[in-house]
Amino acid sequence: MKDFMELGQRILQAQPFSRLLGTGLEHLAAGEAVLTLPVREDFLQQHGYVHGGVVSYLADNALTFAGGAEFGDAVTVEYKINYVRPAKAQRLRAEAKTAAAGKRLATCQCEIWAETEGDEPYICAVAQGTIMAK
Amino acid sequence: MKDFMELGQRILQAQPFSRLLGTGLEHLAAGEAVLTLPVREDFLQQHGYVHGGVVSYLADNALTFAGGAEFGDAVTVEYKINYVRPAKAQRLRAEAKTAAAGKRLATCQCEIWAETEGDEPYICAVAQGTIMAK
Amino acid sequence: MKDFMELGQRILQAQPFSRLLGTGLEHLAAGEAVLTLPVREDFLQQHGYVHGGVVSYLADNALTFAGGAEFGDAVTVEYKINYVRPAKAQRLRAEAKTAAAGKRLATCQCEIWAETEGDEPYICAVAQGTIMAK
Amino acid sequence: MKDFMELGQRILQAQPFSRLLGTGLEHLAAGEAVLTLPVREDFLQQHGYVHGGVVSYLADNALTFAGGAEFGDAVTVEYKINYVRPAKAQRLRAEAKTAAAGKRLATCQCEIWAETEGDEPYICAVAQGTIMAK
Repeated sequence: MKDFMELGQRILQAQPFSRLLGTGLEHLAAGEAVLTLPVREDFLQQHGYVHGGVVSYLADNALTFAGGAEFGDAVTVEYKINYVRPAKAQRLRAEAKTAAAGKRLATCQCEIWAETEGDEPYICAVAQGTIMAK
Repeated sequence: MKDFMELGQRILQAQPFSRLLGTGLEHLAAGEAVLTLPVREDFLQQHGYVHGGVVSYLADNALTFAGGAEFGDAVTVEYKINYVRPAKAQRLRAEAKTAAAGKRLATCQCEIWAETEGDEPYICAVAQGTIMAK
Repeated sequence: MKDFMELGQRILQAQPFSRLLGTGLEHLAAGEAVLTLPVREDFLQQHGYVHGGVVSYLADNALTFAGGAEFGDAVTVEYKINYVRPAKAQRLRAEAKTAAAGKRLATCQCEIWAETEGDEPYICAVAQGTIMAK
Repeated sequence: MKDFMELGQRILQAQPFSRLLGTGLEHLAAGEAVLTLPVREDFLQQHGYVHGGVVSYLADNALTFAGGAEFGDAVTVEYKINYVRPAKAQRLRAEAKTAAAGKRLATCQCEIWAETEGDEPYICAVAQGTIMAK
C-alpha cells in the first residue's frame, strides 16, 4: 500500500503536465486511485466553468493510475467521458477503480466530483476506459 | 466564413485554459474546425511524450468547435478518444468535422496529428463525440 | 414500482427484436433496470462464445430502460461497451443504473453478467451511455 | 484479396448469430470491411425503426472484420456507437476501415448506412472501436 503511494507520487511528479496543473495523489492501491486537483482561474472555459479538457485530463490520469496499479506500468488505450454537469468547484476529485482486469488489459471507471467548501459535492463527469500493461 | 473565424477566435481567447496552453484556431466553418497547439516541455508525461490529457483537451475542444459551428453555441455531452500512437511532436493539430447533425445534437469526429518539422506527420489519436446546441 | 414494471413489459413486448431473442425484464424502477436473456445456440460466434452483438444489444436495451425510467419515453443517443471477458453462459443478465440525470439527458452505466447454473457468475462487459428524453 | 473474402465468408458462416440475422459480406481487404444486412420485421423496436441492438451488432461485426483483416484473427476490445438518425430501411450497410494500426491493436471506424430502394441512403450510426490481434 505504502509502496503503491510512493510509486504513484514518483510518477505524478515525473509528469510535467501534472506538475503544471498541480495534481495530487490521495489514494493508490491495486485497481484504485484517487487524484485531486485544486481549481485555478486559468483552468476555466468561457462560461466560468472548469474546462472540459481539465476534467478529461484528470479522468484520463486517474483511469491510468487505477489500471497501472494492476499492472505496474501501463498506458491508456482509450476512454470515453460523459460530462454530466458543468463543473463549478474549488477542487476536482477523481475516484477511479478497475471494473474488470485480465492479464494485459483492464477496464477502469472513474467519477469526477466537483467539490467546494460548504457545498454538497456533486459528480460532474463519469468515464470508462481501457488500460494496457506496458 | 470570416464570421465563423472571428467568433471562434473570440471564444478561444475567452477560455483561460486555452490561453494557458496556447491553442490556435486555424480553420472554422460549418461542421469543421482545425485547432493547433505548439508543444511545450510542461505538456509532457513521464516518458517524454505529450500527456494524454493535453491530446484529450485538444480533441474535446476541436469537437466542440466543429459542433458549435453547426449550432452557434454548443456544449460537449460526451466523447471517446483512442490514443493510437504516442505523441512526440513540436505541434499537435486537431482536425474535426461533423459526421451527422440533427436539430440539437451533432456527432463529430476528430483526428489529432503529431507534427514535427522535417518529419512525416502522423495520427496520434482519433476521437468521436456528441455536441449539443445550448 | 408496479407501474414501471407493467410499462416496461409492454415496451419490451412491443419490440419485435427483443421478442426474437427472448429478453426478459426482471426489474425496473426510476434509474434502474435489470434485463435477462437465456442464451441459445444461435446467439454464438465462431469460437462458441455469445456474439458481442448479443451482449451489446442487451447492454443498449438495459441502458435505455434505466434512462427511460427517468424520463418516461427515451432514446439512446450513444453508448460505449468494453468486452472484459468472453461470455460463455446459459444466461446473460444486464444490470443498468443511472449515474447522473439532468432534465433531458441521463448518463447510465451497465454491467453484463454471464450466468451458468453451478458456476460463479462473472462480468463479461461494462457499458456507459447517454439516454435522452423524447 | 480473394483470400480475404473467402476467409471472411467462412468466419461469417461460422457465426450462428450472423446466420440468424442473415448478414452478408460485400467487401473485405486489409483494414476494410463492408457488411450488409437485409432488414426483417423482427429486427424492429417499438416505434417501427430498426432496433439499436441490430445496428450495434452490425457495427461491432464490421469493426472486427476490418481489424481482423489487419491481424488475421482478432477480437473487439471495446467500441462506442452514436445513433445519429433512426434507421428506417430495407437494408443496413456497414462500411468499416482502420484509422490506425499498431502491432497488436487497431482503431477502426464504421459508418452504418440505411438503404431503401428509391430513397437516398443516409448514415444512421457511426462507431469507433479497438480491435486486438488474438
